[in-house]
Amino acid sequence: MNFSKEFTSAILIIGNEILSGRTVDKNTSFIAKWLGDLGISVEEVKIIPDKENVIISSINKLRKTYQYVFTTGGIGPTHDDITSESVAKVFGRKYDYNKEAYAILEKYYANSEFNEGRKKMARMPEGATLIYNEQGSAPAFSVENVFVLPGIPSYVELMLPQLKDVLVSGKKIISASVDAKVRESSIAVALEKIQKHYEDVDIGSYPYSKEGGFGTVLVMRSTDGPKLEDCKKEVEMMLQIYSKI
Amino acid sequence: MNFSKEFTSAILIIGNEILSGRTVDKNTSFIAKWLGDLGISVEEVKIIPDKENVIISSINKLRKTYQYVFTTGGIGPTHDDITSESVAKVFGRKYDYNKEAYAILEKYYANSEFNEGRKKMARMPEGATLIYNEQGSAPAFSVENVFVLPGIPSYVELMLPQLKDVLVSGKKIISASVDAKVRESSIAVALEKIQKHYEDVDIGSYPYSKEGGFGTVLVMRSTDGPKLEDCKKEVEMMLQIYSKI
Repeated sequence: MNFSKEFTSAILIIGNEILSGRTVDKNTSFIAKWLGDLGISVEEVKIIPDKENVIISSINKLRKTYQYVFTTGGIGPTHDDITSESVAKVFGRKYDYNKEAYAILEKYYANSEFNEGRKKMARMPEGATLIYNEQGSAPAFSVENVFVLPGIPSYVELMLPQLKDVLVSGKKIISASVDAKVRESSIAVALEKIQKHYEDVDIGSYPYSKEGGFGTVLVMRSTDGPKLEDCKKEVEMMLQIYSKI
Repeated sequence: MNFSKEFTSAILIIGNEILSGRTVDKNTSFIAKWLGDLGISVEEVKIIPDKENVIISSINKLRKTYQYVFTTGGIGPTHDDITSESVAKVFGRKYDYNKEAYAILEKYYANSEFNEGRKKMARMPEGATLIYNEQGSAPAFSVENVFVLPGIPSYVELMLPQLKDVLVSGKKIISASVDAKVRESSIAVALEKIQKHYEDVDIGSYPYSKEGGFGTVLVMRSTDGPKLEDCKKEVEMMLQIYSKI
């Protein structure tokens, strides 16, 4: 299945803690599922360190290749948070206090607590559009087709829904799955024949082992509901025939 | 901190199920930690779909940029498993049965069970070096500096230790961490000063919230043990001073 190029995106995960293996990235899965529901496919995910030249070159390449780019991480108050300044450089914009973000943070922190680190979270590329944090703390932002989100998964989950009306999306990608209680290698050839017959459906085969037994989850994805249904029926029929052999 | 270019690597995660958000990738974290212990840093992770042209161009770019490339996924028996054939094309090698892999699989599966799908798992680039699966089933393989691993995390964990003596590694990267019971924005400025003082130590700051309270884990990484120790002491001293304000 080829999704329309128009509704593509990439996710850029920024942070040494992911690359070192210390932290397992959970943002990709959440963002990708959320985008899939809107009809926007994720074509590429890249995980990179907190290095300015790498951030800038990665964003520049991705924003020209895909309709949307979502970054996570590096917009906090510490020295290793350099995403916002890097995005300003990407677009050749001034990196300075965003008045609205500054006001939000000033209100959120008591006077004596509004220190330099916290003020830094109000610095953004000039003309950035804010993405609010409903808990009242630091907002994220977007510039053109680049959406700059925090690294903390609970904040990402809070913020993404705001973008629903901003993103231009395609046909919703729907999926169906069948739990085949056989090893995938048993049905590989039969499955390939079904895949060839249904070009508009993307069939994935995901083996698992549970309590010593092997099985395979077959996941079908498509933007065409009736074809997806037909394909699912054919897969189920194939499995029935297989179970009788 | 700049790790020597010599001991760098990239991980390439191949699979639609990760890009769609259906599956959370766990291989990156495991492989990266394992490589870090050997003194090999992961500089980039890329997640891509099961598309031949994307697999080929990604591997070609990564293998020229880094000392080692580790791929996961796409070496199973089904139609969407196209990594092995793609790797053969990367190196301009024939994609055909590997005699040793074929013999292993022939032994593993009963005669009647050794079907076309399973035979496919013995097809590899000509001259590939096998990476064995101690459970006796399908081996993975390497060609030059590209290590082609399965997608199933338990298999990756089984196979990686075999590569220990194959990989040329650098100084072990050691780490220390301090749990600061304060928000990272409170200590951002003080932390930046310490980072500037310790160029050979990479200080990461990772905020968390637990039971309504906020805290920050400070992780220091370096190949220089004594400097790491000094840096840790200075961070602890800074936190003590901070707690008295």
